[in-house]
Amino acid sequence: MGKVVLIIGAGDAIGSAIMRAFANKDYVVCGARRGGEKLDPLVEELRGAGKQAYGFSCDARKEDEVEALFADIETNIGPLDCVVFNIGANVPMTILDTSAKKFMKIWEMATFAGFLAGREAARVMTKRGHGSIIFTGATASMRGAAGFGAFASAKGALRNMVQSLAREMGPQNIHVAHVVIDAAVDTEWIKGMLPDYEERKANDGVVNPDDLAQNYVMLHEQPRSAWTFEMDVRPWAEKW
Amino acid sequence: MGKVVLIIGAGDAIGSAIMRAFANKDYVVCGARRGGEKLDPLVEELRGAGKQAYGFSCDARKEDEVEALFADIETNIGPLDCVVFNIGANVPMTILDTSAKKFMKIWEMATFAGFLAGREAARVMTKRGHGSIIFTGATASMRGAAGFGAFASAKGALRNMVQSLAREMGPQNIHVAHVVIDAAVDTEWIKGMLPDYEERKANDGVVNPDDLAQNYVMLHEQPRSAWTFEMDVRPWAEKW
Amino acid sequence: MGKVVLIIGAGDAIGSAIMRAFANKDYVVCGARRGGEKLDPLVEELRGAGKQAYGFSCDARKEDEVEALFADIETNIGPLDCVVFNIGANVPMTILDTSAKKFMKIWEMATFAGFLAGREAARVMTKRGHGSIIFTGATASMRGAAGFGAFASAKGALRNMVQSLAREMGPQNIHVAHVVIDAAVDTEWIKGMLPDYEERKANDGVVNPDDLAQNYVMLHEQPRSAWTFEMDVRPWAEKW
Amino acid sequence: MGKVVLIIGAGDAIGSAIMRAFANKDYVVCGARRGGEKLDPLVEELRGAGKQAYGFSCDARKEDEVEALFADIETNIGPLDCVVFNIGANVPMTILDTSAKKFMKIWEMATFAGFLAGREAARVMTKRGHGSIIFTGATASMRGAAGFGAFASAKGALRNMVQSLAREMGPQNIHVAHVVIDAAVDTEWIKGMLPDYEERKANDGVVNPDDLAQNYVMLHEQPRSAWTFEMDVRPWAEKW
Repeated sequence: MGKVVLIIGAGDAIGSAIMRAFANKDYVVCGARRGGEKLDPLVEELRGAGKQAYGFSCDARKEDEVEALFADIETNIGPLDCVVFNIGANVPMTILDTSAKKFMKIWEMATFAGFLAGREAARVMTKRGHGSIIFTGATASMRGAAGFGAFASAKGALRNMVQSLAREMGPQNIHVAHVVIDAAVDTEWIKGMLPDYEERKANDGVVNPDDLAQNYVMLHEQPRSAWTFEMDVRPWAEKW
Repeated sequence: MGKVVLIIGAGDAIGSAIMRAFANKDYVVCGARRGGEKLDPLVEELRGAGKQAYGFSCDARKEDEVEALFADIETNIGPLDCVVFNIGANVPMTILDTSAKKFMKIWEMATFAGFLAGREAARVMTKRGHGSIIFTGATASMRGAAGFGAFASAKGALRNMVQSLAREMGPQNIHVAHVVIDAAVDTEWIKGMLPDYEERKANDGVVNPDDLAQNYVMLHEQPRSAWTFEMDVRPWAEKW
Repeated sequence: MGKVVLIIGAGDAIGSAIMRAFANKDYVVCGARRGGEKLDPLVEELRGAGKQAYGFSCDARKEDEVEALFADIETNIGPLDCVVFNIGANVPMTILDTSAKKFMKIWEMATFAGFLAGREAARVMTKRGHGSIIFTGATASMRGAAGFGAFASAKGALRNMVQSLAREMGPQNIHVAHVVIDAAVDTEWIKGMLPDYEERKANDGVVNPDDLAQNYVMLHEQPRSAWTFEMDVRPWAEKW
Repeated sequence: MGKVVLIIGAGDAIGSAIMRAFANKDYVVCGARRGGEKLDPLVEELRGAGKQAYGFSCDARKEDEVEALFADIETNIGPLDCVVFNIGANVPMTILDTSAKKFMKIWEMATFAGFLAGREAARVMTKRGHGSIIFTGATASMRGAAGFGAFASAKGALRNMVQSLAREMGPQNIHVAHVVIDAAVDTEWIKGMLPDYEERKANDGVVNPDDLAQNYVMLHEQPRSAWTFEMDVRPWAEKW
């Protein structure tokens, strides 16, 4: 049986592409999201292509649900070799317009869920002495722009947590990495946001999720004498 | 009457020193902390020296308490000219040893309370078109070291929120700044942590809170053609 | 006699303002630039106000001229307490348009001269066990934007050198600092570059050199338990 | 014929490994170094394995030699698809111990040669509208530690130049990238420096040049919707 990979935040674009990329290399892929039934078509598609794929429902902000997810996979599918945390929560608004509830919710999705995922992955992997844990970051991970305070706060919080985790896990032979996406990705959400979307997409001006996903597989497969903690990704024509 | 300054997180060391520094320049100083009665001796001392000083009890993680604190001061003391957020929450532990509850609590103290303080300050100051909001940062604001995941996550979250706030408030003539303390400060807590504390203190090897506090007054008083967003502070002999 | 300060790169705007700011606090101020006679009016002005001021001609890219400048001041004026390096060389152009000669010249002015100044200052100050060395940085010190390759390369080179120097000199009780100016400063050169210059200046939208200069004096006078290595400066309304 | 790759700074360890990695994927590999005859054994080895490989002598600090190298390859071998700049110059010493000559020489090797290589690569590639230019960085690219002033200055200068180049070249469909090696690499030089070298090497505790070199090929082959500018590399057990 292939090695087992779990993608938490297996949405329609990036998360699904990461599932496909690992499946194409014959990993057993598990995807988790709220409303896991939305993964059914992808799971069907991958199984139809002779791959092993599973979908799970999980609210990644709930400690008990995350623990149950890991227990389920480890017991019924196999030992996790790679865990990807891919939940975003980009809701632009000024600090003055940010309710306390919203500020907390964005942190719960983008940071707290990432802490829970990272900690559970570290728990099962340290027992075996190997594995990879990969997190999706964003421009907002690096700095807080005007109008992005809550999101930047949550992504910065995730990044610093991931740096600590990487430094703690490295010497235990567990590879922790952070992929900083510094651009719009080709998703349904972006489609509605960018007026010049079609033109940009036609010219590779938005990140193709499949191209992006290759980097997650590459990071997982890096030999341990030369591990990458962080890499940024953006399209060729992007202004940065 | 002097201009009004509020220090949220008016602890025995840094917070109290910031109160003293502003009082020495004849600002009206308000200190807030949980158990505000602990501020009584300082308030007495400052009043005895002819200054205007007030102590408040406030759990800065509670939205309603923060709102009430601002309303109380604005109504009964005067319009706030400067707000300092100075709550830390440095509890070293590895990610594997961090309970979900602890992770959240550290964020609530170091980040969420900072968001509430910053937002309320922005609300009252934007109405008047001037003021300063200053936040205390730490080495952990910049990166996550091994053993400091929860704290680094929370301080990184605060910093990114503060960057967004600074970019949103600057054009409204409100100065937002972040002081990064990259060293041990002379506090009771540090006293118990550093074996060579006495020797270091005798040689200015720990940050003197009064020396540090000068920077908060300086930042508040910077003319608006030349505002500083961020400055680091450490003792001369500190390794960094 | 007052303590002696040397400003290398004592141009008409920032450098002259730094000289004035130190002179106002009764330091003995020495300014050096190519064509030192251009400093005559400022020296006259300061002397007329009862201050001690001196102008020097020096090509700061020449090791022997820098050594001679330091020897002259130390012998004939007094021991240097603070040295400021303030030479810029902002010549925007793409890498493709940058001649090898230009690339080297910009580095010689912005980096190599800074190394020579910093090293000579360190030499005289380590003998006495105290002093400050302060360098002027820019946005380009932090990252290389399109169209600013040669300048960003030189300023980044200066910053990393200054970081090393700060870490080497701190434990010898010598304070090394770096002021990052992240905006247009009110100079003749900028006047010709910004179409909305007059309006911006009227609204404190360009850095006032006198406001900026206060930070150099403040840094020099910081007590050694709380030294700042780096601070940024920009006007209130600046987009960053 | 395969696409042509040039490695400037084709030393015995990293540079040679990069040549091997590209040759293994059937690129035509050109290596350049001072004393190009030192490349003869590697060229023989690669040709013996059925690859196309060439060695060149070039002092990369000399503009005319770099221009001649590019002209030679473009005329006699083929259009360059990828250029790697891999010259280091790590000579630890304090600023006080750094002669002006040494400071300049380290910059000439690590920065100026990189500028020349990057500019010449940009010249030939912009005509064709595609290609990659990849630079080797180091921990010192990011900050100046005590005892590494000249090296950190030069590497910081290279990085900022490369950032500008990346931002200028991206929209011209030319991929510019920077690999930050944050650890000792398995070289003859390191062998003499680390007392625990053999043990570290046995445990993948030093970077294996072949593992590292894979990243250069990966970067060159990234699809343009998802280009990486910067990635760091270090062994699993490295403290950072």
